[in-house]
Amino acid sequence: MTINRQKSKDEVIEALHGVASEMHDKMTRGNPPTMTLPVRSKSNISFDKRLGVYKYGKKRTVRDATALGSARQLLRALHITEFIETMITDGKTSTLREMYYISEGWGHGKFSTQNESNNLAEDLEIVTKCLREDFGLRPEEDGARIIGNVTFEEQNRKGNWMRINCRDDVGDSGYGVPYNVESEKLNLIEEDIDFVMAIETGGMFDRLVENGFDEEARCALVHLKGQPARSTRRIMRRMSEEWNKPILVFTDCDPWSFRIFASIAYGAIKTAHISEYLATKEATYLGITADDILAYDLPSDELSKQDSNALSAELSDPRFSTGWWQEQIHLMQEIGKKAEQQSLAKYGLDFVTDTYLPEKLSAMGLGY
Amino acid sequence: MTINRQKSKDEVIEALHGVASEMHDKMTRGNPPTMTLPVRSKSNISFDKRLGVYKYGKKRTVRDATALGSARQLLRALHITEFIETMITDGKTSTLREMYYISEGWGHGKFSTQNESNNLAEDLEIVTKCLREDFGLRPEEDGARIIGNVTFEEQNRKGNWMRINCRDDVGDSGYGVPYNVESEKLNLIEEDIDFVMAIETGGMFDRLVENGFDEEARCALVHLKGQPARSTRRIMRRMSEEWNKPILVFTDCDPWSFRIFASIAYGAIKTAHISEYLATKEATYLGITADDILAYDLPSDELSKQDSNALSAELSDPRFSTGWWQEQIHLMQEIGKKAEQQSLAKYGLDFVTDTYLPEKLSAMGLGY
Repeated sequence: MTINRQKSKDEVIEALHGVASEMHDKMTRGNPPTMTLPVRSKSNISFDKRLGVYKYGKKRTVRDATALGSARQLLRALHITEFIETMITDGKTSTLREMYYISEGWGHGKFSTQNESNNLAEDLEIVTKCLREDFGLRPEEDGARIIGNVTFEEQNRKGNWMRINCRDDVGDSGYGVPYNVESEKLNLIEEDIDFVMAIETGGMFDRLVENGFDEEARCALVHLKGQPARSTRRIMRRMSEEWNKPILVFTDCDPWSFRIFASIAYGAIKTAHISEYLATKEATYLGITADDILAYDLPSDELSKQDSNALSAELSDPRFSTGWWQEQIHLMQEIGKKAEQQSLAKYGLDFVTDTYLPEKLSAMGLGY
Repeated sequence: MTINRQKSKDEVIEALHGVASEMHDKMTRGNPPTMTLPVRSKSNISFDKRLGVYKYGKKRTVRDATALGSARQLLRALHITEFIETMITDGKTSTLREMYYISEGWGHGKFSTQNESNNLAEDLEIVTKCLREDFGLRPEEDGARIIGNVTFEEQNRKGNWMRINCRDDVGDSGYGVPYNVESEKLNLIEEDIDFVMAIETGGMFDRLVENGFDEEARCALVHLKGQPARSTRRIMRRMSEEWNKPILVFTDCDPWSFRIFASIAYGAIKTAHISEYLATKEATYLGITADDILAYDLPSDELSKQDSNALSAELSDPRFSTGWWQEQIHLMQEIGKKAEQQSLAKYGLDFVTDTYLPEKLSAMGLGY
């Protein structure tokens, strides 16, 4: 059930035909058509300790055309595979929202909500062992911005390959990561960095850029834009794997930011079928930590009820089972506080690059 | 009270000193220090029919140090002016969030909420007749992305001027507009376009890019990212003024999208003190219109209670007082529907560029 490499156009089309074949085979034998896929509920997702990522378990469900709801799902799946095949042949892509609207023309296969069409796209990823990016299906969300001395080669819409150095060839807003960062669209060419730093907020990203931290500390800066898009997680995974660079994650100190880190390092439940492809096990949480709030006497806010609940849930989340995380979460519960990255500005605009990050990095053996 | 050009560093510093001077003068005469500024409530904002933008009226308020709250505001204003002067001297910028945290060190001048510090930054714009961009104060929000055959020159953080053609020198995510698009930071160099099209959603922007609409229709595409940032509105104004290009606004058909258009064309209440600087009177609303919902039989949603209230409010909003807008709003109320840009995908991925836009543009005399 693992997806671990990108497929050629022909392989994707063949995999899509497999969906129709399963249905066709059943029908020629006089049985109702079916589609088999893993149960996609939380009960069938487990944390693979060896791989360190979320994975689907062995429970399977069979959709067949004996009930109206399932029959509709099969019809939709056939419409989608046809739509995707046409896109691949024509060299087009589509947003998930556009696909939802395109289903207006599918009669009984029309989707009632976009959630249905998004879920079916994920089902098809699982059944065909292809990626949504293989299908040319795009989210609306934006990818990350990158600044630093790294060079990518991106194939633009005209089919030309462009070399872009993320320090010299971009304005201050950086290089915008496209939705598809696979090798048929983007290649990692050159780097002169020691590590990659992933940053939660735009304000902190811009601060490090303005202070020239990428050059001083020899790193690439990645603006995550909150919960990172698939393409953002995937490009970090590729930088980790192909360039063998540490990925350091710098976020606010609150339970939601911890989840951003966890989705980068271990994968997220929603993308459990492609964790091995998106997750960067080697990612390290840099801060802000509960320790930092105390050590640097940072401006902080009280934990809300929701924050406290989220923290408690994390105590039993296998992604936070290490001693270090357990300590940090307990400490946060004890002090009842959270803090933002930008609270470091209490000590001036340069404190983060002159003091905080050098101290944290040297404690991690990444002093510069 | 109008701000209509950017100031040199020295002029900005001089204007900031003016704030301290007013206070100092009062004190040397034995009076409590004061700061005079226009009343910033809706009652003192009016629509200037001649200029076609929102403007502040003549009501003034005087803050003096005879009440604790006002005294704090004056203290804060002095701290901010000092902070901004240091930034200007050091060639730094700061997010509004950072400034909020920096006030931690201001004793009695510390802000309780970021709203307070944001408002005071706007007050200072009004009092000094400078722009927030002059102060080096940045929002967290992202600027727009642009794709098309237009060339800008941007001074990057190292002080080097880079020429960037938004068709040839960028990846598929386009050129990221920096927060400051004034002439000391960004210049408009060359263009080979007939008009600018501003697009509300990322999905539609990407669709037009993929379909090569910018080349086919000879236009620059601007992704607004919802309610557009100041830099986005300002760069469109500059393209309108310096290049004399029509600005066409392409959004969803709902009352909130109409406000996006209105803020581009006529300014917004929150930035009434700089409307003449941000607003592009020549901007035209292209669609989606209520007419389009009917003419193209677009998939639509029922207006919610909030939508209906917003529509009713727009009927008496001077920005929508033209006969055309009144008709469209009445028609929307009559059919009780709204529709998204991407609903055009009902007729396939190319319908928007093969049929919808050509028809709309030729009706506007912009056929291609």
